[in-house]
Amino acid sequence: MNAKDSISQHSQWKTLAFERFMQIVKAPYGDFQAIWNLASALNDEEGFRRTVEFLSLHPLARAAIQNRLLLGAIDLQQLHSLPSETLGHAYSDHLLRNSLNPIQSQTVENDYDYLIAHLAEVHDIWHVVINADTSMAGETKLQAFVAAQLRASRFSFAMLAKNLLKAAVEDLDLAEQLMDALAEGWRMGKQAYPLFGMQWNTLWDIPLIKLQAKWNLLPDTIAG
Amino acid sequence: MNAKDSISQHSQWKTLAFERFMQIVKAPYGDFQAIWNLASALNDEEGFRRTVEFLSLHPLARAAIQNRLLLGAIDLQQLHSLPSETLGHAYSDHLLRNSLNPIQSQTVENDYDYLIAHLAEVHDIWHVVINADTSMAGETKLQAFVAAQLRASRFSFAMLAKNLLKAAVEDLDLAEQLMDALAEGWRMGKQAYPLFGMQWNTLWDIPLIKLQAKWNLLPDTIAG
Repeated sequence: MNAKDSISQHSQWKTLAFERFMQIVKAPYGDFQAIWNLASALNDEEGFRRTVEFLSLHPLARAAIQNRLLLGAIDLQQLHSLPSETLGHAYSDHLLRNSLNPIQSQTVENDYDYLIAHLAEVHDIWHVVINADTSMAGETKLQAFVAAQLRASRFSFAMLAKNLLKAAVEDLDLAEQLMDALAEGWRMGKQAYPLFGMQWNTLWDIPLIKLQAKWNLLPDTIAG
Repeated sequence: MNAKDSISQHSQWKTLAFERFMQIVKAPYGDFQAIWNLASALNDEEGFRRTVEFLSLHPLARAAIQNRLLLGAIDLQQLHSLPSETLGHAYSDHLLRNSLNPIQSQTVENDYDYLIAHLAEVHDIWHVVINADTSMAGETKLQAFVAAQLRASRFSFAMLAKNLLKAAVEDLDLAEQLMDALAEGWRMGKQAYPLFGMQWNTLWDIPLIKLQAKWNLLPDTIAG
């Protein structure tokens, strides 16, 4: 490919990325097709390579990526029978209260599939361990936390921009809440232990607050 | 206007706001026409009213808005001859090093004009007092600080979303820097004394660090 073709291809990619961004801005919250379309357009080779490089600085994530470790089936009722202070109880309680089910692992054929599958299956666990509810502010706090933990995910940054723009135009009260959530999630994600690749199914019976303290996930006021 | 017309007008306004957003995303940084177009579209009556209400909680801003106080002409060379630790010296030095001139006050015919004129003339002063350089990260830190101090400016929130989206698509290293800047500027803006309406021309000969300490504008590590 000559330089001119390469520039033209890059310019087409940018145009597509911005188009997909506007589609998700105009879509209702949680429109999975729009989310998928944005992710497909934004997750280019450079962003993916840099995310894997950054994650692989840590042995936990490196081993998980190499071995494509997934959590597998989760028995919600069994987790819910664990003592109330445990991670397993808190996680199953979060799902049951919000009428959610654990995300089933996808077929994984390459590292990119693995990243997506792992992030999908831990999404609700991370909600619980960083103490983010399922409101728009809670989702934004989690998205900022994910952005900080992945460090080079174009998709995460674009989703934050999307939430902020939507709130700026559609809901001013929410805009302030989202900025609080974004700043807090980003700070937590940078300060916390790197959670990618954690084998959560070995930790269900441990008290949640013990894990949060160990991984620097408590609010400053408590941790201080 | 009946309810149907009102809904249709609101939907047209949203469409225009999103169009102007995409125009500024695709424009080069600092394209004043694109900035102006976005501000004109986004600064609706509700956002403006709520910004003025929030600012007016504080006597300094309330008096400035009522009396439409502006700084007037500034003699850069005279300020630069003040001792190096003073606000006046730091401000004039910032302008001279960046080949900038003080923004001239516009004709002010209503409260909205006044808000814009005051924010324009203090832009570079706020750069200095919050310690934000003129890099994209510095501008984003200031924009987040302004967003926090105005609290209900659709334009400020949209500009932050714009910077973040542009970086996500065009420059991954910058995206991380912008998130740091955004989180820091927002935190500072919420913790700091409300600066809107400050009559800076009475403060030029005061040491900058004294003003920063008084207004809670020092980094946590120093203020600690």
